[in-house]
Amino acid sequence: MEKQKLFVIKVGGAVVEDENSLMGMLEMFNRVAGQKVLVHGGGRSATRMAEKLGIETRMVNGRRITDAEMLKVVTMVYGGLVNKNIVAKLQTLGVNALGLTGADLDYMESTKRPLKDGVDYGYVGDVNSVDSDILGMLIRQGIVPVLAPLTFDGEGTLLNTNADTIASEAAKALASDFDVTLIFCFEKRGVLREENDDNSVINCITEEDFQQYKEDGTISGGMIPKLENAFGALKAGVKEVIITRADQLSTGGGTIIVKE
Amino acid sequence: MEKQKLFVIKVGGAVVEDENSLMGMLEMFNRVAGQKVLVHGGGRSATRMAEKLGIETRMVNGRRITDAEMLKVVTMVYGGLVNKNIVAKLQTLGVNALGLTGADLDYMESTKRPLKDGVDYGYVGDVNSVDSDILGMLIRQGIVPVLAPLTFDGEGTLLNTNADTIASEAAKALASDFDVTLIFCFEKRGVLREENDDNSVINCITEEDFQQYKEDGTISGGMIPKLENAFGALKAGVKEVIITRADQLSTGGGTIIVKE
Repeated sequence: MEKQKLFVIKVGGAVVEDENSLMGMLEMFNRVAGQKVLVHGGGRSATRMAEKLGIETRMVNGRRITDAEMLKVVTMVYGGLVNKNIVAKLQTLGVNALGLTGADLDYMESTKRPLKDGVDYGYVGDVNSVDSDILGMLIRQGIVPVLAPLTFDGEGTLLNTNADTIASEAAKALASDFDVTLIFCFEKRGVLREENDDNSVINCITEEDFQQYKEDGTISGGMIPKLENAFGALKAGVKEVIITRADQLSTGGGTIIVKE
Repeated sequence: MEKQKLFVIKVGGAVVEDENSLMGMLEMFNRVAGQKVLVHGGGRSATRMAEKLGIETRMVNGRRITDAEMLKVVTMVYGGLVNKNIVAKLQTLGVNALGLTGADLDYMESTKRPLKDGVDYGYVGDVNSVDSDILGMLIRQGIVPVLAPLTFDGEGTLLNTNADTIASEAAKALASDFDVTLIFCFEKRGVLREENDDNSVINCITEEDFQQYKEDGTISGGMIPKLENAFGALKAGVKEVIITRADQLSTGGGTIIVKE
């Protein structure tokens, strides 16, 4: 039986923080035809809320140190404010959205990260299982899961997990049942040949190209782990990965990452 | 076809605010045999969070005035912190919980309350429809919906709705498909004959009894709307309503409200 097409679309950063850009993005998301999953971030909102509550935000290697107080903040902001706002806006567009954390339906379990290079990340979870049956069941009923970046330790506690990771893990798990395209939206139009030239989008990158671009310095910094993540998803059965900007979601464009 | 039994259980107030009492209540909830829905409050947590954020809590007739800032607070606290904490704890007990606001799956729509006796309650919703098909579909799959006291205006905005109302409306809507017992847990062992004597629980109240108790002053104050609400649910097809304390959930006890 031919697999059905499924888009797992991750949005994050600035786009979900501002009501106007959020609504614009959700309208683009709505125009993507077919079965879909939306994954969102919300780090800036969490940082802002923590600040209002007098809780210090500490980042190490771009990741949030999540102590007990910060876990409450991200549970409120990711699981409540951002997730439910997105769900309400999608419903208004006629998308049958359902907000989920890893604990809901126990769909994504993780393990609290052990000390790493001497860094205690606190209540941060590394994913160890995804219940693709329950996600698949929802998707086949026309429901659009909206995944908050929170996973579940199986023992009563939610854990903070990077939204890119949630998207990859969901995409990989669903790849056995669906023909999955994983899309990462970020603030640039794609992977750029020249960092500050939005017209220098590289249309397509194979793993061989990636090695080449790393060697000659075309691709560097934070884009390297993003692409490594993308190739990891392809190896685990995801059909294609696209890195793009939210406003290009329904029109095409961006960088397609393919196996070879 | 005989209808299946379903319990709609509302917990609120102090019981969900403290980790120990919450865990105790959830263990009781878990022991209630059969299909279940849990509805929770969280007003005290919302008030505390608002205070930390420097937002004033204003109550009129026991109801929260919900301006735009307070709506963010209740969305975070009810939809995020309280709801997801309960879901995570229930999953740990082996209950396949799924947290929902009215916007999730568009299951409960409401209308923003118009000015009432000159009072502007703000973003408060009066329920106008419940999608009992979607709730029933989840319940029949062994899923336990955990309902936050937030409804959806159908136009992108969540609205604050009293948890007792959420419970009654869900129970009434589900009564056409299930044999529903609606249970309200509060801090007393049931409806008391003597306000300060926990051993004076009235075991059973019919509507005729209720009129009598109101006339002779046995029942007064906040218990009157609670019971009117209960009789309203019975008239709409709910089989029985029980007012009890959370620690009696699985052992029985409390006050049973019956039609006649």
